[in-house]
Amino acid sequence: MSKHKTFTAAIIVIGNEILSGRTQDTNTMWIAERLNERGVFLQEVRVIPDVKGTIIETVNDLRAKFDYIFTTGGIGPTHDDVTAESIAEAFGVALECHPEAYELLLEHYGEKNFTESRKKMAMIPAGAALIPNPVSAAPGFSIENVTVMAGVPRIMHAMLDYVLSQIIGGEPLLSNTITCGLAESELSDELGDLQRRYPDTNIGSYPHFRGGSFGLSVVLRSQNAGDLKRASEELIVIIRKHNEEPKALSVQVPIDF
Amino acid sequence: MSKHKTFTAAIIVIGNEILSGRTQDTNTMWIAERLNERGVFLQEVRVIPDVKGTIIETVNDLRAKFDYIFTTGGIGPTHDDVTAESIAEAFGVALECHPEAYELLLEHYGEKNFTESRKKMAMIPAGAALIPNPVSAAPGFSIENVTVMAGVPRIMHAMLDYVLSQIIGGEPLLSNTITCGLAESELSDELGDLQRRYPDTNIGSYPHFRGGSFGLSVVLRSQNAGDLKRASEELIVIIRKHNEEPKALSVQVPIDF
Repeated sequence: MSKHKTFTAAIIVIGNEILSGRTQDTNTMWIAERLNERGVFLQEVRVIPDVKGTIIETVNDLRAKFDYIFTTGGIGPTHDDVTAESIAEAFGVALECHPEAYELLLEHYGEKNFTESRKKMAMIPAGAALIPNPVSAAPGFSIENVTVMAGVPRIMHAMLDYVLSQIIGGEPLLSNTITCGLAESELSDELGDLQRRYPDTNIGSYPHFRGGSFGLSVVLRSQNAGDLKRASEELIVIIRKHNEEPKALSVQVPIDF
Repeated sequence: MSKHKTFTAAIIVIGNEILSGRTQDTNTMWIAERLNERGVFLQEVRVIPDVKGTIIETVNDLRAKFDYIFTTGGIGPTHDDVTAESIAEAFGVALECHPEAYELLLEHYGEKNFTESRKKMAMIPAGAALIPNPVSAAPGFSIENVTVMAGVPRIMHAMLDYVLSQIIGGEPLLSNTITCGLAESELSDELGDLQRRYPDTNIGSYPHFRGGSFGLSVVLRSQNAGDLKRASEELIVIIRKHNEEPKALSVQVPIDF
């Protein structure tokens, strides 16, 4: 077992536009990369529609399983924005007008243009802490281990920076990627054996077709720099046994070739 | 309630490389678009790691909820490819060497290079039907309402074409997208009202920043062409009331302006 404390996370992408195929989700990859740096490891992603019952069920299922839950989407002013009321219901708390959020929105829109539907964006579950939105005022919020962010990438990025500056994480996950011209199935027995000997290092292999020829990237990921160095160097030896010359594609922990 | 029979689907993306942020998933959007055309509506996506217990639990949860389940990833020859054995266990059937899959792989690799780890790709849950892989021989398979495909997009696309030619779907989902220069919150009350009057048409609004100015795309989706036309034309009237000129961005059901 790992001696490093690991923190786990799940993302809930709330939005019909992803499920309909209209919009390509890019938030998952963005969040995953930043969580790695903070020593928090993404374990699951669920993409669900803007449907209250589904949001409540998904939030309550996942918040019991993982250390941190991040949601994106559904906090705007329209009829299909039901995230805040769903989160309130998932936690069994009231959805209340948050005075600070109200002030921020009032200042942003001005009294004349602060319509009823815009006021909806000041409705926050009781007890939640606001997450500032430097782009368009309407705040996100955190309640217990659930962080609720906008779906628009530019706004989500700013909210995530703020949130990640505040959370407790673990040792960052380090990663080495080594490529070679072998087929995945030529290395699979030895990769399986390497994985068994380094249980705290995640070893994945990804075939690719690049520059006219097939190849294989092996990605080794660990919180333990020593393990990662040793496993990477063993892999070099394995590849050379197949009369192939390995290349370091991206190496966070330097290795001796 | 809709008079049109609707079919539902979920996707299970199996792969540590998506959760680690290393790889951008593009399979979801590809599958969603093609399902729409076949009258099958994607209701949920789960991205999960290459972990047997998680795969079994997720498959059994979702196959009871939706008409069709599509999985991508984890059917290669390496130690982290555990999808086939997990599916067998989820259905409580044996994982067996499939004679036809074995022959296909033998022919592809040749006797000399048909290693033990490559033979693993012929192991298919008992009772499953093969899905041909015209790219790299290793087949996918279908068992009851679960379709298991490769994660590599080029291979998945070919497998999906084959699968979609065989499934029973509904009326295709039609979609009209209308844009205007209004802010989302200026239209939100009227959009909510429009949605209530057209319950079988899904109405979503998506703010954008394009060519130096803000705007809003309203996407209306329905299996009922008449409803879609009427709702779209009412939206045109609503937008004009705000002294804005609507534009048809993409219209599958023609409307009168």
